[in-house]
Amino acid sequence: MKVLTMKCMKCEKEYPDAPDRYVCDECGTDGILDIVYDYGSIKITREEIAASKNYSLWRYRKMLPVADTTEIPPLQVGWTPLYRVHAVEKMLGLDNVYIKDDGRNPTASLKDRASAVGIAKAREAGAKTICAASTGNAASSLAGFAASAGLKTLIFVPKRAPRAKVAQLLVYGAKTVIVDDTYDRAFELSVEITKKFGLYNRNCAYNPFLVEGKKTVAYEMWEQMGFDLPDRVYVSIGDGCITSGIYKGFYDLMQLGLTDRMPRIIGVQAAGCNPGEIALKTGEFVAQQGDTIADSIAVGIPRNRLKAMRALKNSNGDCISVTDDEIRSALLEMPRATGVFGEPAGVTAFAGFKKHALAKNIDASEKVIILITGNGLKDIESAISVCTMPTPVAPDSETIEAHVKKLL
Amino acid sequence: MKVLTMKCMKCEKEYPDAPDRYVCDECGTDGILDIVYDYGSIKITREEIAASKNYSLWRYRKMLPVADTTEIPPLQVGWTPLYRVHAVEKMLGLDNVYIKDDGRNPTASLKDRASAVGIAKAREAGAKTICAASTGNAASSLAGFAASAGLKTLIFVPKRAPRAKVAQLLVYGAKTVIVDDTYDRAFELSVEITKKFGLYNRNCAYNPFLVEGKKTVAYEMWEQMGFDLPDRVYVSIGDGCITSGIYKGFYDLMQLGLTDRMPRIIGVQAAGCNPGEIALKTGEFVAQQGDTIADSIAVGIPRNRLKAMRALKNSNGDCISVTDDEIRSALLEMPRATGVFGEPAGVTAFAGFKKHALAKNIDASEKVIILITGNGLKDIESAISVCTMPTPVAPDSETIEAHVKKLL
Repeated sequence: MKVLTMKCMKCEKEYPDAPDRYVCDECGTDGILDIVYDYGSIKITREEIAASKNYSLWRYRKMLPVADTTEIPPLQVGWTPLYRVHAVEKMLGLDNVYIKDDGRNPTASLKDRASAVGIAKAREAGAKTICAASTGNAASSLAGFAASAGLKTLIFVPKRAPRAKVAQLLVYGAKTVIVDDTYDRAFELSVEITKKFGLYNRNCAYNPFLVEGKKTVAYEMWEQMGFDLPDRVYVSIGDGCITSGIYKGFYDLMQLGLTDRMPRIIGVQAAGCNPGEIALKTGEFVAQQGDTIADSIAVGIPRNRLKAMRALKNSNGDCISVTDDEIRSALLEMPRATGVFGEPAGVTAFAGFKKHALAKNIDASEKVIILITGNGLKDIESAISVCTMPTPVAPDSETIEAHVKKLL
Repeated sequence: MKVLTMKCMKCEKEYPDAPDRYVCDECGTDGILDIVYDYGSIKITREEIAASKNYSLWRYRKMLPVADTTEIPPLQVGWTPLYRVHAVEKMLGLDNVYIKDDGRNPTASLKDRASAVGIAKAREAGAKTICAASTGNAASSLAGFAASAGLKTLIFVPKRAPRAKVAQLLVYGAKTVIVDDTYDRAFELSVEITKKFGLYNRNCAYNPFLVEGKKTVAYEMWEQMGFDLPDRVYVSIGDGCITSGIYKGFYDLMQLGLTDRMPRIIGVQAAGCNPGEIALKTGEFVAQQGDTIADSIAVGIPRNRLKAMRALKNSNGDCISVTDDEIRSALLEMPRATGVFGEPAGVTAFAGFKKHALAKNIDASEKVIILITGNGLKDIESAISVCTMPTPVAPDSETIEAHVKKLL
């Protein structure tokens, strides 16, 4: 029994481990629970991990809150590539810069790590239908994983959800309810309906097991650097779940005696939606409208804010913001320098990293990882909006030759 | 020197191995060359392959026409998942059905296997700029791999190329020429300009090294089935390069004494563009217009037809076609049964497989692999066109509850 207890992030009340326990009875949705492990009972070594031939996040199964006998969903998830990016190092005068490309997951975002664990927990709870609210990546991830596992999904999306993102759910057969209202109302309804119909809930800032899936990205950073740690990780912040997961992963490694320090976690937000940046300075969260091209992180008030703040503070981290113009530049600059195409929220981390590097905030010798959380193909409209479509050229050889001479 | 010679598929004239030799001097673009190996000089065992910790197509480097010292591009490519799909087996009364998901490659299509080898060969040729003609996946693949390797690209696309596919090139910084004409003219121009400006050419039905990259998908099928072979592979056919690659991979394994038989390769075309199906029956290729939703295989006359026909004939294979309605059905049916979302040309293979299965053409005990060549996110517009967008529902709890009751 490696899970000791489930502990409220707000009042610290503890609850016994159960796959379908979500939030604190006293604090409600503010009281997201944290999974507390009996680390002494988890026996694992670097050698054992290195010897695994399971190239997915399930290579870390011993460190996950999933029973040994639980059937896991079949899609290959995690163990995404970590690239050393020399062109970026050269551009900014740094010695050790890496990109972790989580857009390579099955439905093309980091959310798949959470869905994989979520599906496993739904099975432990005996659920047949999983419910969630989302406008984007989390929902299509859930829909894809549920389809692969033969489970049903019921997903609430707000009226303003982009058609392309809704299509990604429908493709996988998710029962989709477009709520004629905001995301906040869709979230509330997903919780109401979960209770009313006895479904299983996969909202990441509600069901505490999902952050445990996301933490595996930190394990991989460590293992893929040759069982070494970066000095900093840059990650974009929306609800704060990924930031929380990165911290939990590194925290686990320390508790298990596998590492001895905590890398600095630097959260990056869009300037048009930066409640985390403000809260880290003032201690207070003030709801915002959420105006940015990076739709996946346009979250006016981060729902997993307590865990995210713990991550930033305990890692001696920071939270900064970048303008939409900086995000637009990064949409092109990063793929051109690295071959990795990220969606706006994904390259926001790159834009924040670049801002810090230009401000000489990073020592040249520091090992830096930029985490790309979603693939650019998820949102091709944003890519089109930053590209200049060339004008057609007459097809005769002479005209084409003259044109090519100018281009090369 | 594992490459013995480069041999014309049409007149059988042989040429010495060179990274920048493309087609036969006598037969021109009809005379695509085949890479002929000195199999006796390649010493490799199952044990050696199984022990490799390189989870990319480069685990088979000994079997690729790339020098040991050549620097390879950094993007992780190949070693895509092979999934057993029980829901599909159940649906069609078969015992052993697998999906190989090549949409999981870096730029989300199988073309990345060819680009990886193409970039390596461009380096051997000392090239700085790579040239290609394409409307879609091959071009964005080349652009992404070249960006990761610090090389330049010049890409010709026809006027009718969809904006979303052109954007994928521009994102990676490809110098893009929109030719005010057809794909055929863009192809011709790419060959002309390659010669005129001394560039390196990456057209897969022109540069014979690219099929050698694609052949690795067959090696992986074999290894991932536990060093066993499928009885059949279903694959969609456009220019015929992937079909040719699958055959070459299985052929290599036989020549190297690693296997003792050739699986049947079943090509699937769109009914609106089926020159391969007709040619296999009549022995003659008749150019077509290419009218189908599956744009990546809308090829009126397959340019790699000689290699593709060899693959189908020598493997005791077949070539069939499916209607656009069958492709549209597969666009939804496959992800809902498997969690794998393919683009129209990708799911065409699934549609062909299903057609054969329903016609009882496949024995229940046969091991079947369906190769999915591109990710559905490449072409979200086609997905939107087959989905029914739900109507927004009023956000009060009562209305939502009543609505959910009907849905579940």
